[in-house]
Amino acid sequence: MIVALGGNTLLPMDDETMAGQRRRIRDAARNIATLTEGDSEVVLTHGNGPQVGNLMLQQEEAKSGLRFPMDVLVAETQAQIGYVLQQELGNALEEAVSTLVTQVRVDPHDPAFENPTKPVGPFYAEEEAKNRAFQTTQVKRQDGRTMYRRVVPSPDPIEVIETDQIAAILDRGGMVICVGGGGIPVFLEHGELQGVEAVIDKDRASAVLGAELDADEFLVLTDVDHAYLDFGEPDQTPLEEVTTDELHQYLEAGEFEEGSMKPKIEASVDFVEGGGERAIITSADNIEAAMAGETGTQVIQS
Amino acid sequence: MIVALGGNTLLPMDDETMAGQRRRIRDAARNIATLTEGDSEVVLTHGNGPQVGNLMLQQEEAKSGLRFPMDVLVAETQAQIGYVLQQELGNALEEAVSTLVTQVRVDPHDPAFENPTKPVGPFYAEEEAKNRAFQTTQVKRQDGRTMYRRVVPSPDPIEVIETDQIAAILDRGGMVICVGGGGIPVFLEHGELQGVEAVIDKDRASAVLGAELDADEFLVLTDVDHAYLDFGEPDQTPLEEVTTDELHQYLEAGEFEEGSMKPKIEASVDFVEGGGERAIITSADNIEAAMAGETGTQVIQS
Repeated sequence: MIVALGGNTLLPMDDETMAGQRRRIRDAARNIATLTEGDSEVVLTHGNGPQVGNLMLQQEEAKSGLRFPMDVLVAETQAQIGYVLQQELGNALEEAVSTLVTQVRVDPHDPAFENPTKPVGPFYAEEEAKNRAFQTTQVKRQDGRTMYRRVVPSPDPIEVIETDQIAAILDRGGMVICVGGGGIPVFLEHGELQGVEAVIDKDRASAVLGAELDADEFLVLTDVDHAYLDFGEPDQTPLEEVTTDELHQYLEAGEFEEGSMKPKIEASVDFVEGGGERAIITSADNIEAAMAGETGTQVIQS
Repeated sequence: MIVALGGNTLLPMDDETMAGQRRRIRDAARNIATLTEGDSEVVLTHGNGPQVGNLMLQQEEAKSGLRFPMDVLVAETQAQIGYVLQQELGNALEEAVSTLVTQVRVDPHDPAFENPTKPVGPFYAEEEAKNRAFQTTQVKRQDGRTMYRRVVPSPDPIEVIETDQIAAILDRGGMVICVGGGGIPVFLEHGELQGVEAVIDKDRASAVLGAELDADEFLVLTDVDHAYLDFGEPDQTPLEEVTTDELHQYLEAGEFEEGSMKPKIEASVDFVEGGGERAIITSADNIEAAMAGETGTQVIQS
């Protein structure tokens, strides 16, 4: 089973200290630990949006002037989040859980490189944004203010480089944390891998890993209990059991928010169409009920 | 075989950018790649002194005020260095190499906690050092200036938490990078692991891992070609083949520098006395000659 945990669900907005992160991660770990009952193999992936944003802000503010590229910062967040997750999960399960630094290959000719769309890092006022050496875009903050953020390409994941190593640990019976932040984006040039300034959607990358590992189930954990039709409207309707064909229609109708629910729906469809039994979208505190089929958006084959 | 790579050998003093780090790491990777000829299993460990120092400096200078504890910063350097190493080694070997985020258990009653000795992080002038919330010590910089640095405890490593997972990947035939920076220091309390503000010597931790994995050889790579008697004196003598008994005598005579060559010698002695065939101390560009027994300090059983 692949379990994808949202980066926002791992960091409380009102307490970004490590103590705050650890509290949130501990809660998630206790819920995830219940999944190993019945001997299922569990691979845990996670987002890193706010965490990589904090590292970008930190190195921008520091006088010392060291500026690491996105691939290295994504790697750092894999261990920053992975370490606390592996420790808290290990404590909950009473066995060692491991984190693998994971690269995910993308196509250097992916059209995403022509059209960067993924906002990352700190928020800037309009004047500050103009002076940056990188492309920025207007975004609306949670407090309603219009500000600017850097945008980077979000190419499609093609393959996870370390799948054999992940499988080796799973076969030994251990839980694995990997593909953090969607994986470190790399491409092949002259037969050699190299990092690239981009961010891969973690749900899409998790679906690719799920297909590579022949996983039966894909659990997408986020901060809502279901995907919704007409989300945010007075008549919003939770999606319960839904087929991939139905989801294709909803996607065409523009039902799901870009960069938020849409990639989760696409990744769920990809996973089930690639041979998975079901994908579930729900929140971490609904894990047990969702696994029993009692809540969450349950995506099945048509 | 366990190969321990010095943190200083991975970062050029005159170019701490990621481009500089990557150049240095690529050179080391090409040398290390030669070790896999003849099907030996290779586990690579590495230091992180200057790299964790840069992260400490960066978060101290940043206005945003997030201050992560040492265990989390050590984790971040494991992935920062591990990612570049795994990519460059993978390119040299034409196969995937993986990095595991690694915890190393210490004893909360280790006397090191009463007497912090390991300097870490930025250098401070005397006045700056007085205002810090942590213990500092006088150190002599390479340029001869006397300054101050934070000191943290350096407890003995007891066990590597993720040894089974490391073995699972080795058994599958892959090279593993782990125990970066000596491992993330953790201790057990009420049956649960938790991180602690300390730094474990990476050579000592590597020797512990070598014993756990029943490794035959332990290669300690540093910036000198041998360990020396009377190091730095006009009549300094390189140690070539040397037994553990001889090294005990030299250790008692105070031959080796604290925090530098001494822990490498102690780790080599521990490894060979724990059942290893030989330990070698040399520089990365001497790997092939040293493996052939032609150079380097070769530590053997008495």
